[in-house]
Amino acid sequence: MAYLNDNYLKLQAGYLFPEIARRVREFCAANPDAAQRLIRCGIGDVTEPLPPAVIAAMHHAVDELSVRETFRGYGHEQGLESFREKIAQQDYRDRGIEMAPDEIFVSEGSKSDCGYILDVLGDRNRIAITDPVYPVYVDTNVMAGHTGGAGESGRYEGITYLPCRAENQFVPELPAEPVDIIYLCFPNNPTGAVASCEQLQSWVDYAREHEAIILFDAAYEAYISDPQVPHSIYEIPGARECAVEFRSFSKNGGFTGVRCGFTVMPKTVLARTSDGRQLPLHSLWHRRWSTKANSVSYPVQRGAEAIYTPEGKEQVRALIDHYMGNARILREAAERAGLRVYGGVNAPYIWVETPPGVTSWQMFDRMLEKLNVVITPGSGFGSCGEGYFRISAFNSRENAEEAARRLAGAGDGLPSGR
Amino acid sequence: MAYLNDNYLKLQAGYLFPEIARRVREFCAANPDAAQRLIRCGIGDVTEPLPPAVIAAMHHAVDELSVRETFRGYGHEQGLESFREKIAQQDYRDRGIEMAPDEIFVSEGSKSDCGYILDVLGDRNRIAITDPVYPVYVDTNVMAGHTGGAGESGRYEGITYLPCRAENQFVPELPAEPVDIIYLCFPNNPTGAVASCEQLQSWVDYAREHEAIILFDAAYEAYISDPQVPHSIYEIPGARECAVEFRSFSKNGGFTGVRCGFTVMPKTVLARTSDGRQLPLHSLWHRRWSTKANSVSYPVQRGAEAIYTPEGKEQVRALIDHYMGNARILREAAERAGLRVYGGVNAPYIWVETPPGVTSWQMFDRMLEKLNVVITPGSGFGSCGEGYFRISAFNSRENAEEAARRLAGAGDGLPSGR
Repeated sequence: MAYLNDNYLKLQAGYLFPEIARRVREFCAANPDAAQRLIRCGIGDVTEPLPPAVIAAMHHAVDELSVRETFRGYGHEQGLESFREKIAQQDYRDRGIEMAPDEIFVSEGSKSDCGYILDVLGDRNRIAITDPVYPVYVDTNVMAGHTGGAGESGRYEGITYLPCRAENQFVPELPAEPVDIIYLCFPNNPTGAVASCEQLQSWVDYAREHEAIILFDAAYEAYISDPQVPHSIYEIPGARECAVEFRSFSKNGGFTGVRCGFTVMPKTVLARTSDGRQLPLHSLWHRRWSTKANSVSYPVQRGAEAIYTPEGKEQVRALIDHYMGNARILREAAERAGLRVYGGVNAPYIWVETPPGVTSWQMFDRMLEKLNVVITPGSGFGSCGEGYFRISAFNSRENAEEAARRLAGAGDGLPSGR
Repeated sequence: MAYLNDNYLKLQAGYLFPEIARRVREFCAANPDAAQRLIRCGIGDVTEPLPPAVIAAMHHAVDELSVRETFRGYGHEQGLESFREKIAQQDYRDRGIEMAPDEIFVSEGSKSDCGYILDVLGDRNRIAITDPVYPVYVDTNVMAGHTGGAGESGRYEGITYLPCRAENQFVPELPAEPVDIIYLCFPNNPTGAVASCEQLQSWVDYAREHEAIILFDAAYEAYISDPQVPHSIYEIPGARECAVEFRSFSKNGGFTGVRCGFTVMPKTVLARTSDGRQLPLHSLWHRRWSTKANSVSYPVQRGAEAIYTPEGKEQVRALIDHYMGNARILREAAERAGLRVYGGVNAPYIWVETPPGVTSWQMFDRMLEKLNVVITPGSGFGSCGEGYFRISAFNSRENAEEAARRLAGAGDGLPSGR
């Protein structure tokens, strides 16, 4: 008699974005005219074409696969060596961070990696997750059986939630109860907040003191404009002993549909066996990859590698500038509309308080129905996200400007009143 | 205190192919002349360029990503609808098998899927795995904690091994003890054996009677030449109630470096919750994909979709004919050398008995050192693989012919004697 994984049955409703997609689909079917003028500022999906350097590299790689002399089959389990060397040099060593290419693991994206990392971790770790948060961290822990059921608030038993609110500038305080695995994401999705070196240092110190591991999601590091803000957890002394970092090409190179990212697993990160020995996680992570995967598509890796060329970097810079221009426009429009606004300076997300008495999903429905603008309800990211919504800056300039007009305009612009 | 997944520590040595790669690397470093004439018939990695239809489709898709009007970001979590519709129609409905596009889940390859499927299955299932076998089935179950440690023979406690030997034509008999999850792979890697409709029917009947689930790996179905041999488990009545099928584009379209495959999860496959309810696995599998991944790279999917065009099919046919031509040449050479030979007729692998008294790894070393031909030691696939080795037909014709000469030639050809 075959059994299924019961833990999946604890998961609530759909994953956030499919649920949003469903509501939008139903609204558009019922309101074809409004559907015509719909502007999507919901899911953080890029809209601008891939950088020309990436396009050229992908074409070249496809051509290599068209003749026997340059054809390639199975690749190195961690990804192309030349690619990993560029990552180690340009993302880390150039910033004064020690990093070897064999500490880089190229993957199909950081969303997957954030889930896969649980493969090599034990079942008895106490998990700390910020609230609000990217839903993948919570859901993958539920699936892995690291939680009990969900309560009234949607919170799962067994997870230590770290509240992120305006009062702490959306950077969590150290937990009162001891924890073993800590998910941090800066620049943050969904709040757009960043953490200072001092704030991250306190987490690294905590992790080293408690032998905890920090899972640091840096998918949005390219959006940092403030030179004081760290781009990598490894800028913090001691982090190589306690942190795993996830990076993505989705939001810098526009790879949401092309799929590429990487995990940094320093050989100095140790964890305990159940009989108390300390071993590096690196060898387990390597084994996971060589057993469960066959590296990332060759043309995709070559495309991502092109991001590290001088032209690639310049073209990515232009993409970031474009989206951050949108962020400024949307942020200012929300402010003009009298809303309280956070984020949108070092991150492509603007985190906005709903008007008094309006829940996140009510705001979602109003924005959809009255302004025909899709946003993401803050409560979808956790109970501390209730009373907020997220505006994504991933859009064309034209759409960002139109969304700003609808948001800020007098009369029918402000969704709170009528 | 962070804990690691202890189950990884039960895994033996390296995964087979990295271990082979290491031995070959060391041999080549020590013997640069021999390295020059090395022929690799080890890992089942394709050597011929991608079909022109695939190349054209990938170029076109990359171009689509270069302009805003046709740019695409996040895709449907199960893969492109047009692609899944073609799969459902051409691989299944055209063979008289009921199949809906939403029962197809496009992935980065069947290697990954064979591991991922455990995500949605429970921990108390009794697992049956053939011996010899593709190591991924065993290793992923070890990692997931479904086994005890390994014994002297390399077998893990808690797995029901299903011996495949010459006496049963490498098709396992039904197990004496009841099992819940059964891994079957036909055409088989590594033995090259195929299962008849009658043989598969007995497994489907067993699964339905015991509420077991068959995990059917059909990665090599394109190599079937005998019209009596089923290409899909779903050709067997009742299989839609008890079987999950894994397919790959690695070995038909040559996608080992491009990465694409799919899993078929019929909505009619049920499994038990721990409190005894029966639920479809489909919704769990769907949730797994929407939570842990963001679909497969767009240009990769378009490339794989091109395999279903008339030109694509013709070009894939030519690739298969090429590799099966190699298989015939290598098979006949091994026979001429006086070795006992299996497979190589409906599969690109030739399964060869080692000469009396010679172990699989001894044969590997001899073939490497004396003939400079890399093969795969049968014992790497399980203890019943001891006394065999696998020759892969994935090669250029020139290399296959030269490997055949070295195998079959008089004098220094036969590795068993001196």
